[in-house]
Amino acid sequence: MTSSNRPSGRAHDELRDVRIERRYTKHAEGSVLVSFGDTRVLCTASVDNKAPGFLRGKGEGWVTAEYGMLPRATNTRNDREASRGKQGGRTLEIQRLVGRSLRACVDRKALGERTITLDCDVLQADGGTRCAAITGAYVALCDAVAWLKSRGEITRDPILGAVAAVSVGIWQGTPVLDLDYREDSGCDTDMNVVMNDGGGFIELQGTAEGHAFRREELDALLELAGKGVNELIALQRAALAA
Amino acid sequence: MTSSNRPSGRAHDELRDVRIERRYTKHAEGSVLVSFGDTRVLCTASVDNKAPGFLRGKGEGWVTAEYGMLPRATNTRNDREASRGKQGGRTLEIQRLVGRSLRACVDRKALGERTITLDCDVLQADGGTRCAAITGAYVALCDAVAWLKSRGEITRDPILGAVAAVSVGIWQGTPVLDLDYREDSGCDTDMNVVMNDGGGFIELQGTAEGHAFRREELDALLELAGKGVNELIALQRAALAA
Amino acid sequence: MTSSNRPSGRAHDELRDVRIERRYTKHAEGSVLVSFGDTRVLCTASVDNKAPGFLRGKGEGWVTAEYGMLPRATNTRNDREASRGKQGGRTLEIQRLVGRSLRACVDRKALGERTITLDCDVLQADGGTRCAAITGAYVALCDAVAWLKSRGEITRDPILGAVAAVSVGIWQGTPVLDLDYREDSGCDTDMNVVMNDGGGFIELQGTAEGHAFRREELDALLELAGKGVNELIALQRAALAA
Amino acid sequence: MTSSNRPSGRAHDELRDVRIERRYTKHAEGSVLVSFGDTRVLCTASVDNKAPGFLRGKGEGWVTAEYGMLPRATNTRNDREASRGKQGGRTLEIQRLVGRSLRACVDRKALGERTITLDCDVLQADGGTRCAAITGAYVALCDAVAWLKSRGEITRDPILGAVAAVSVGIWQGTPVLDLDYREDSGCDTDMNVVMNDGGGFIELQGTAEGHAFRREELDALLELAGKGVNELIALQRAALAA
Amino acid sequence: MTSSNRPSGRAHDELRDVRIERRYTKHAEGSVLVSFGDTRVLCTASVDNKAPGFLRGKGEGWVTAEYGMLPRATNTRNDREASRGKQGGRTLEIQRLVGRSLRACVDRKALGERTITLDCDVLQADGGTRCAAITGAYVALCDAVAWLKSRGEITRDPILGAVAAVSVGIWQGTPVLDLDYREDSGCDTDMNVVMNDGGGFIELQGTAEGHAFRREELDALLELAGKGVNELIALQRAALAA
Amino acid sequence: MTSSNRPSGRAHDELRDVRIERRYTKHAEGSVLVSFGDTRVLCTASVDNKAPGFLRGKGEGWVTAEYGMLPRATNTRNDREASRGKQGGRTLEIQRLVGRSLRACVDRKALGERTITLDCDVLQADGGTRCAAITGAYVALCDAVAWLKSRGEITRDPILGAVAAVSVGIWQGTPVLDLDYREDSGCDTDMNVVMNDGGGFIELQGTAEGHAFRREELDALLELAGKGVNELIALQRAALAA
Repeated sequence: MTSSNRPSGRAHDELRDVRIERRYTKHAEGSVLVSFGDTRVLCTASVDNKAPGFLRGKGEGWVTAEYGMLPRATNTRNDREASRGKQGGRTLEIQRLVGRSLRACVDRKALGERTITLDCDVLQADGGTRCAAITGAYVALCDAVAWLKSRGEITRDPILGAVAAVSVGIWQGTPVLDLDYREDSGCDTDMNVVMNDGGGFIELQGTAEGHAFRREELDALLELAGKGVNELIALQRAALAA
Repeated sequence: MTSSNRPSGRAHDELRDVRIERRYTKHAEGSVLVSFGDTRVLCTASVDNKAPGFLRGKGEGWVTAEYGMLPRATNTRNDREASRGKQGGRTLEIQRLVGRSLRACVDRKALGERTITLDCDVLQADGGTRCAAITGAYVALCDAVAWLKSRGEITRDPILGAVAAVSVGIWQGTPVLDLDYREDSGCDTDMNVVMNDGGGFIELQGTAEGHAFRREELDALLELAGKGVNELIALQRAALAA
Repeated sequence: MTSSNRPSGRAHDELRDVRIERRYTKHAEGSVLVSFGDTRVLCTASVDNKAPGFLRGKGEGWVTAEYGMLPRATNTRNDREASRGKQGGRTLEIQRLVGRSLRACVDRKALGERTITLDCDVLQADGGTRCAAITGAYVALCDAVAWLKSRGEITRDPILGAVAAVSVGIWQGTPVLDLDYREDSGCDTDMNVVMNDGGGFIELQGTAEGHAFRREELDALLELAGKGVNELIALQRAALAA
Repeated sequence: MTSSNRPSGRAHDELRDVRIERRYTKHAEGSVLVSFGDTRVLCTASVDNKAPGFLRGKGEGWVTAEYGMLPRATNTRNDREASRGKQGGRTLEIQRLVGRSLRACVDRKALGERTITLDCDVLQADGGTRCAAITGAYVALCDAVAWLKSRGEITRDPILGAVAAVSVGIWQGTPVLDLDYREDSGCDTDMNVVMNDGGGFIELQGTAEGHAFRREELDALLELAGKGVNELIALQRAALAA
Repeated sequence: MTSSNRPSGRAHDELRDVRIERRYTKHAEGSVLVSFGDTRVLCTASVDNKAPGFLRGKGEGWVTAEYGMLPRATNTRNDREASRGKQGGRTLEIQRLVGRSLRACVDRKALGERTITLDCDVLQADGGTRCAAITGAYVALCDAVAWLKSRGEITRDPILGAVAAVSVGIWQGTPVLDLDYREDSGCDTDMNVVMNDGGGFIELQGTAEGHAFRREELDALLELAGKGVNELIALQRAALAA
Repeated sequence: MTSSNRPSGRAHDELRDVRIERRYTKHAEGSVLVSFGDTRVLCTASVDNKAPGFLRGKGEGWVTAEYGMLPRATNTRNDREASRGKQGGRTLEIQRLVGRSLRACVDRKALGERTITLDCDVLQADGGTRCAAITGAYVALCDAVAWLKSRGEITRDPILGAVAAVSVGIWQGTPVLDLDYREDSGCDTDMNVVMNDGGGFIELQGTAEGHAFRREELDALLELAGKGVNELIALQRAALAA
């Protein structure tokens, strides 16, 4: 393990303490509190026995996501989006990403004409909320699918494989895994990587915040991300087996 | 203790299991998770060193509240208010009530020209969310005030006394204390009572849902509410002493 | 009659001059201008031969209310809500109260699958607009129901009894009836009481604006409210008989 | 006087019964209820001692208007604009017209850095609401200016002359004056004409609803409008002298 | 030709250089870039095989318009209406005018149950955008109708005649045709005239911006407008024949 | 050059016909019509001599972007965002991307306390609008900066280097450059790559639309993107030199 001078004191390729707590609330068909260190996101999966309008009568289902952050999840209070009367661009961007990522692991024909909505609400933020949301929402989705199967509403398993996400970045010249807020703020490059359990890429979103990043930096970041996602998928499996 | 046939099996004058957990999240100046049985509300207090516009230059502070419910806090999913683009009437009504109730226990001159915002977000709903919100927000407010005092920003204590709230109703002819969702749905009359530690009334909101309620029923409900608020204030004290 | 030093010069238990003028505008099925002193509210009842979506096919009707205030109904001009793009919390709170109060006196099965909307628009405000709205809307509702009966559209009378509302408060230590704006602004406690003609309570909304109110004060306020509502119901009857 | 077969039975060049009632409500600096037959519009003038942002520091004032219609001013209920969350195109169009028309008779330098807002709210509609609004708002504006003069806030009279408006149209081939709703609905051409007391045109808005109108029809309509505006200005004068 | 001192150097009755470019974009059923001098408006016609809700089942079609201006179509940047969250009053007023003007030349029964939407987007503004929009949209509408005919979807021609529009105004005492931005800003009176190819008036909207205009001025303006519209209709014909 | 069976008939590494037309409209400080084949985007740069609020007094400027699509830029008409009352998630996502990409090539201190807004409006869409927008907006930005320099308002050049963007994807197993709409719809993977003239990455956004993409596919795509961006930067230079 390479030494690094990360503010968090972690090794450059070390995840934060990740916890996945199922059945966190009682009403939802799937309810998971996921923590990546001090980042805590409540992910619930809600089953609706209707497909959205654009899919009616096509024998397919839909998986979608919504994202929110409690006003004081962050260090300084943010205006409540419900009170401002609209969701900001960052929120919309994240919930679109979460929805696409989860649809990538679902056989929508096997799901049938129903909609599963993943609500990802950040109770406490410390960097990496979108990656935590994807990682936790996958587990909530599995629980909702299991609930459907237990009631005999679906027979074929619509889950095609596991999906998880992690952020990587370049901290003072060193590629590091799973940035917390302090690291994220100081990074030159920040990338969110969504992968499946076959090692394939589902989404890749990289942004140069200081200097543009070079191909060899990108290679190192992708390597780290692959390692991190593998560990996250093992944690998802363990949680689902519990 | 009178026997009752409440769905919850509780005695007619028995509160649910109430828990008050301080420092639930790390960023806010006050952060409390309050549970009234299965109702769980996260109450954070955020300090802003500015008074709102209508008070600038008057040497007084302000205390206000916002209320929200996660989409799947309830049995069936509700649309996210941020996504619908406005807060509903029920939300606005509740947050106005929470704000007024807490201002009733604050000396706004002693607070000085600053604003404390209480965000009350329902993680799980099972009846009585507005009463839980008031009861928990009081504790978060005390923590925020203590934080201000610890930094020497205020010297005189702006907290005039304790405030708590409880619901009461008439279940099949019997007045009962602290309704859960099932009881609330089946009640003829539903009343929310906000009181202080001196036994005074701060807010009283009663609604006849079936037949109109009579004066003697009202008297019995107020008696129960007084008992419940006393117990809640004792729990607040214990939590603040912890 | 106890003496009082009310700004209005009225006895402590004296209503303002109340007038109920039916058929104030010509298009609505019921149209009432109600005045509580200088407070003037136009209440129209509009019949729609459809139940709202959540009641379709259930053989029941609905009664609902909307509330508005002309921009210069008050001493200083308020922004027009249509131009600001949303109804404020106070408006939503009042229209929900008016709707609930009137539904309490209606047999919705007897009404059949139709909706009656009560629009309460304040032409001039001088305190007590929500109570005037409820009191006047009841008369407009009766006229709309009479119109339905005269056309043979309903046979069974859906009106279960009369409903009226009045405010009470504590002015310089004395409980007083039917507050005008000046009195309301100076009151320690302000309560709106909605009752039926059987003396039952339909809604009770009390707010301590200065010190918390005590049980014996509450008792005195409820006594006054009962007296006021009785007089208002007599005035409603007289208007409907005219 | 030419005979006509107008639904209203009026002569082709005959106004409806026009009434102008000053001091209709008590708070506004000018408050006028204007009736053109069954069309009734409440026009209030509110003085604000600030010019709008784009005029600050220029030594000039502003006159503006807002228009609204109570939901049941019309034969079938319209949605409340405040509740729909926006003003419709027709509303915006009318209030822009009213504002421009009244600014045409005001010396904005003499008014000084203040804003007068004319709120025109239709209590009952029977055609011609925008013309009634302009005609009534002029009187409310004069009252507000008189109020300013009586307090010594302005010295030079900012009113340059009178303004009034009337609609004209072609009913079954005959040009007619001051259309009521039934006539308006059946007209091929509908024109709103705003003029001053010098016989000059301030606004002219004509719309062919059936066949396009020809130049000689236009000439006849303008003649009628001139006659109608003259009579309206005489009625404004009489009201202001009362 | 009378001499004039117009800023543009044009004769008082001279149009700007007008160009009508068909098939400007490839997706729309009709797509026209119309230029009145430096004013450039892209007009597209989109066919939808559904009538709007209020016409369903009536065997009639609908023609409607929307209007927009790119933020930097003008000399200083205007806020984007999509980002402000609503269309301004001027925009709504113009798009209602464009829609009415084009419906005046369409036999809606012959169109059948379909909707044609004319989108008029101003790429560059230099005065007279609404007149250019009407003039160009007519040509786009013709192309969309030709497209429908070429596919055999309609058999009877729904176009009743040509429609075009031009502005006229009084520049330093002289009536002038087709105002550019500089002239428009300096004009005392500004009138938009929509006419058909039979010389009939469809819409007339005149506004006195300085002194009220007199009858003889109006006569001169209408004369000029008639001449201008005739020339525009000839240009429309030439474009459609190309 | 590898053969491919792209619907467009282009070689797998072949850009569409790209044109960059400066001074397309006359008011903006920079105005560029950029075409990537049938995709046409109008990019204007507007200079405002104020920094946004969060930068006031910091001696730095800001570069931001807004994105829009005309309703009929696409094959079927989309609702106008201004009329729906909000910008969609895709729009917000794109304009945030364009803004970040251009800020990456600007020395904001050298720009001084001013804001340059890049409006990117799609006149015609055929895939790749966001990449065309970035590529064209860079040229508009250069023109606006040149305008500032020509007026002596800035002395140091704030442009740090060139920025351009291109999409790449996997079409039936073959990595291809610069997708048009038909190719984009049929691609398994779609990636937008923003790079600078030093070969560094500024933004990377890849989405697996069918199967997840593998590392070697990603490598091939990045190779192609590098080639495409190089060619685009050469075209930008040629346009700026013209």
